[in-house]
Amino acid sequence: MSVQLNGIAASAGIAISKAFRLETPDLTVVKKTVENVEEELQVFDSALEKSKSELEVIKEKTKNDLGEDHAEIFSAHLLVLSDPELVDTIRQKVKDDKVNSSFALKEVSDTFITMFENMDNEYMKERAADIRDVSQRLLAHILGKPIVSLAELNEEVILIADDLTPSDTAQLNKDFVKAFVTDIGGRTSHSAIMARSMEIPAVVGTKSVTKSGEQGMQVIVDGLEGNVIIDPTEEELAEYRQKLADYEEKKKEWAKLVHEPSKSKDGQLVELVANIGTPNDLEGVINNGAEGVGLYRTEFLYMGRDELPTEEEQYEAYKKVVQNLDGKPVVIRTLDIGGDKELPYLDLPKEMNPFLGFRAIRLCLEKDDMFRTQLRALLRASVFGNLKIMFPMIATLDEFRQAKAILEEEKKKLQEDGKDVSDSIEIGIMVEIPSTAVMAPQFAKEVDFFSIGTNDLIQYTLAADRMNEQVSYLYQPYNPAILRLVKMVIDASHAEGKWTGMCGEMAGDELAIPLLLGLGLDEFSMSATSVLPARSQISQMTKSEAKEVAEKALLLNTADEVKELVEKSFL
Amino acid sequence: MSVQLNGIAASAGIAISKAFRLETPDLTVVKKTVENVEEELQVFDSALEKSKSELEVIKEKTKNDLGEDHAEIFSAHLLVLSDPELVDTIRQKVKDDKVNSSFALKEVSDTFITMFENMDNEYMKERAADIRDVSQRLLAHILGKPIVSLAELNEEVILIADDLTPSDTAQLNKDFVKAFVTDIGGRTSHSAIMARSMEIPAVVGTKSVTKSGEQGMQVIVDGLEGNVIIDPTEEELAEYRQKLADYEEKKKEWAKLVHEPSKSKDGQLVELVANIGTPNDLEGVINNGAEGVGLYRTEFLYMGRDELPTEEEQYEAYKKVVQNLDGKPVVIRTLDIGGDKELPYLDLPKEMNPFLGFRAIRLCLEKDDMFRTQLRALLRASVFGNLKIMFPMIATLDEFRQAKAILEEEKKKLQEDGKDVSDSIEIGIMVEIPSTAVMAPQFAKEVDFFSIGTNDLIQYTLAADRMNEQVSYLYQPYNPAILRLVKMVIDASHAEGKWTGMCGEMAGDELAIPLLLGLGLDEFSMSATSVLPARSQISQMTKSEAKEVAEKALLLNTADEVKELVEKSFL
Repeated sequence: MSVQLNGIAASAGIAISKAFRLETPDLTVVKKTVENVEEELQVFDSALEKSKSELEVIKEKTKNDLGEDHAEIFSAHLLVLSDPELVDTIRQKVKDDKVNSSFALKEVSDTFITMFENMDNEYMKERAADIRDVSQRLLAHILGKPIVSLAELNEEVILIADDLTPSDTAQLNKDFVKAFVTDIGGRTSHSAIMARSMEIPAVVGTKSVTKSGEQGMQVIVDGLEGNVIIDPTEEELAEYRQKLADYEEKKKEWAKLVHEPSKSKDGQLVELVANIGTPNDLEGVINNGAEGVGLYRTEFLYMGRDELPTEEEQYEAYKKVVQNLDGKPVVIRTLDIGGDKELPYLDLPKEMNPFLGFRAIRLCLEKDDMFRTQLRALLRASVFGNLKIMFPMIATLDEFRQAKAILEEEKKKLQEDGKDVSDSIEIGIMVEIPSTAVMAPQFAKEVDFFSIGTNDLIQYTLAADRMNEQVSYLYQPYNPAILRLVKMVIDASHAEGKWTGMCGEMAGDELAIPLLLGLGLDEFSMSATSVLPARSQISQMTKSEAKEVAEKALLLNTADEVKELVEKSFL
Repeated sequence: MSVQLNGIAASAGIAISKAFRLETPDLTVVKKTVENVEEELQVFDSALEKSKSELEVIKEKTKNDLGEDHAEIFSAHLLVLSDPELVDTIRQKVKDDKVNSSFALKEVSDTFITMFENMDNEYMKERAADIRDVSQRLLAHILGKPIVSLAELNEEVILIADDLTPSDTAQLNKDFVKAFVTDIGGRTSHSAIMARSMEIPAVVGTKSVTKSGEQGMQVIVDGLEGNVIIDPTEEELAEYRQKLADYEEKKKEWAKLVHEPSKSKDGQLVELVANIGTPNDLEGVINNGAEGVGLYRTEFLYMGRDELPTEEEQYEAYKKVVQNLDGKPVVIRTLDIGGDKELPYLDLPKEMNPFLGFRAIRLCLEKDDMFRTQLRALLRASVFGNLKIMFPMIATLDEFRQAKAILEEEKKKLQEDGKDVSDSIEIGIMVEIPSTAVMAPQFAKEVDFFSIGTNDLIQYTLAADRMNEQVSYLYQPYNPAILRLVKMVIDASHAEGKWTGMCGEMAGDELAIPLLLGLGLDEFSMSATSVLPARSQISQMTKSEAKEVAEKALLLNTADEVKELVEKSFL
C-alpha cells in the first residue's frame, strides 16, 4: 500500500524517482575531561579550518550557479566561524573547565541559538539558523563524522529530509535532485524560496515524510498540488506519469509564448511583468518572457549590512536593472522597511503593532536624508531606460504630495549640478491601505499609476495579520470586499487616463487572474516563473466573459462563493 | 506676568480658584540595622493595620459616592496589603537582614513594581500603579509622616499635582475641588476618567504645572480647550469669567433639553444614546437625557477577576440595565476581548500584531462555551425591556452567520427548557473593519442594524495603530475615506429599511456631528455627558444644510480640508 502525504506546494512541477534520505549523522556529545588541553585545542582548530575551507568552496559554487545574493548566506556563515564571541568562548571553556571541545561547542552554540531564537525579531531568528547550521558542520568535523555532501550525488533522486539547511540547498545539483520533500517549513522558508528559484519541484511541511520514506523507495512529488506518494501503486504511477507528461507538454506550450504579447482570446492586451529583489533576478525575468519589472523591491540593497547603502551603490544597482531591461518598464519601489522587515542599524522603536506602525513611506518622510539619497540614485538611473518610481504604504494624499515634493527638489538639485535626469519618469503609488483604495478617484488626478499591493491590502481590509495562524482564515483574496476595492482603484485610474497594476501574490494566482482581467487590470506583476502560465491562461479566455464573471463576483456574499464561481466558469 | 500652560483637555468645564498643591511627603528611606527585630515588626504591623483601615474607609466612601465599580480598585489595594508574597517577604527581610522595615518595604515593593511595569500587558502595568500607591501609604505610616487627606479640604481650590493616584481622586470632594491640573497623564488615564465621571474640569499632561503653580496662587483651568493660566492678569480673569459665565449659561440651556427629543432645526429626528461600561453608569445616562444605550461594553464584567463570570452574574447585570432603561433601547455588545484588552485567566497567545489578531468575535466563535454563556444571559434578560444584541469585529458574512446560528441554537434550547425569551430582539453588528463597510449592502440584507465603531475603523482604514504616537498623524476621523465608508454603510442600511448608529468617539465630536447628520446617521452613541451638548448642537442646524456640507466633504482631498469646511460652515 502506498502512503499519501499532503504538504505545502512550495515549488511547481512533478517528479517521480527514488528516495534519498538525508540522514543527519549522530552528533551526540558526551562531556569528557581532557588531560591534554593543547591537543584538544588542536582538534578544534583543525575542524574549524576544515569547516571554513568547505564553506569557501560552497560559497564560490553558489556564486557561480545562482548569483552573488544567494552566496551571501555563506559569507554570514564564515563570519560566524571567525566570531571571537563564539570561537574564543569555546577555546576558553576547554582551557578553564578541561572539557572536550565538542562539549564546549555544544554548550556555547546552544546558548547563542536560544538567545537569538527568543528575540522578537525575524532577522535575529535567522541568525539562530545560521549558527545551528555552522555548528553542526564544525561538530561533525570534531567528532570525525562524515558530512553528507549533496554535491556528490550522481544519480537521480528525490531528496527527503526533516528540513534542508541553507548549505544543503546550496549544494543541490539540479541534474540529480529531481525534487525534495521536507517535514517542516512553509512557502516562505529558505528551502522553499531556493526550490522556486532553482525550479526544482518541492513539497514542504508534510510533517512525517521522514517517518514513511525509506532509502531507495519510489516516490511521487506533486509540487503543483502539494501531494507526495511514497511507494506508489501501479495505478498511481500511471496517473502521475500522465500528469508529468501533461505538465511537460504545458511547459513546452508555455515556452512558445516567451516572445508573444499577453493577449486575451478576444485580442485585449495586458502587461505581464515580474517582481524582483535584486539585479540577479534579471535572468529569470528575461528567460520567462516578462514584459518588464512591475515591482523592484529595493529593501535587499539595505539588508544584511551594517550601514545604509550609498547613493553610488544604489545608482549602480538601479542602472543595471534599467539597462538590462532595454527600454521595457521597470517600476522601482522606494524603501519599504519597518513592519516585519527590520534594519538593525536604523534602530527603530519597538512597536505594539508593527504592521500598523512606523514603516515604509512614513519612515522615509521622517528620515528624509535616507529617502533623498535613494531618490537621487533613482533619478540619475532614470536616463538609462524606462524607470518608474513607486511610493509604498501611501495612506493619504498629503503623504503622496510630500514625497513627490521631495522628489522634485532632488531633481532640481541634480539638474542644477548638471546631472542628467529623465523628463518622463512616471510617479506612482502602491495601493495597499484601504483609505487609498477608497480615495482612488482623488489620487488618480495626481499620480501617474497605481499598483495594488494585495498582501497588505487584504490584511488591513480584513483586519487580520497575514502572519498570524489563528486568523489566517480571514486572509481572503477572493472576498468580494477586496474585489470591490480593486474595482474602485481600476475604475478611478481609467477615468483619468491612468493605469493600474497589481504586485501582490494575487496577480499571479490562477483563480484570481480571470477576475482581475475582468475588472480591467492593466498590468499583472508576479514571480517570473508564473509569467508564462499566466500568459497561456489569459490567451484562452475572452476579456468579455471575464468581465461578466467579475461583475457577478462583485455581488456575491463570501470568498467561497467567489471561488466556486470562478472554478465553475473557467477551470 | 501670568504663566500660560497647555495640556490635554481631560474633562470639560472652566474653573477659577486658588491653587492647592498636593505635596507628596518626603518618604526617603535610609537603611539601618535594627537590634530589636520584634519591635521593628510591630512598627510594620501597626502601619499595615492603619493603612488597611484607612483603605476600608475610602472604599466605603467611594462606593457610596461613585458606585461599586469605582470602589473596586480599593479592594485591589486591600488585596495587595494581604498578599503574603509582599508582606511576608518584607517581614522575612527584616528578620534575616536585620534591617528597618521601611527599607525592606522599599526594596521589595520596588522589585514588584519594576517587574510589573516591564510586562508587556496593560493589566499588569496597572498592578504596578496599585502597588506604588499602596506602598506609599504604608511607608508614610512606618515613617510617621502625614498623609495629605484630600477629603479634609474645606475651601474651594484647584488641585495641582504631578499626578493623582486612584486614592487621591477617590477622596476628591466636588464641593471644594473645582478643577485639577497635573503634569502627567492622558485622556484615558485613571484621573482623567474619574474627572469626567465626577464632572470636575481637568487638564492633564501639562508637563510643568507643579513647577509654576505655587500654593495659594490664582489659577484658571479651561477644561474645554486644555488651557491653564497661573497668576492671571486682570484681562485674563475678565475674559475667563465671561467664558465661565457663558459656559454656565450653555449648561443651563442644555439642561432644558433633558426631556426633549433630538431634533434638527428642520424637524428631522435622530437618536442620541450613551455608551456605558457597567450598570453603575445608568444614573449618568438618565440624568443626561440619553434616549437609551447605544453601546454597553460587557468587557468590564470579565475584567479584574480570576475566572469567567457565570450566566447568572451576567443575567443580573443585563437585566438591571434593561429594566432601568424602561423600554428604551439598550444595545449590548458581546465580549470584545483581545487586542489591547487582555483577560489573564484566558491565557491567550502572545501576538505580533494584537490589533490584527485573535480578538472579539474571532475568539468567541472559537471559545464557543464562553460565548454561549453570554448569549444565554442576554436572551434571558431580553424579556425585561428593549434589548438588542451586537457582535463586535465582524469581518465577513460567514462570521455573522456563524454567530447568529449559535444565538439561535441557544434561544431554542432556552425555549425548550421553558425559559422566556423575547421574540423581537434586534441582532446587529459593529462596523469597524473596512471589509464590512465595503460589503455593507450584502450585510444589510441579513442584520437588523449597524453600529459604526470609528476608533477601530479609522485605525484599520488608515493602517495606523491608534496607540502608536509615531503614526498618530494618520488617525484621521475627518479623512474623506472614512466619510465615504460611513456613507456606504448608512446608505446600505437605509436601502434595506434598517438603521445605522455610531458608537466610536467620533459620534460625540462637535466637528463630526454636522457631517454625520448630513450623511443620514440614525443613532449617535457617546459618553453620557456629551448627549445634551450634541442635542443642542443638532437643534441649531438643519439636516438639509448638513447634507449639503457632507456631500461637499466627500469630494475633498484631505482631512484638513474637511475640518476647514465644517468650521467655516457651522462653527
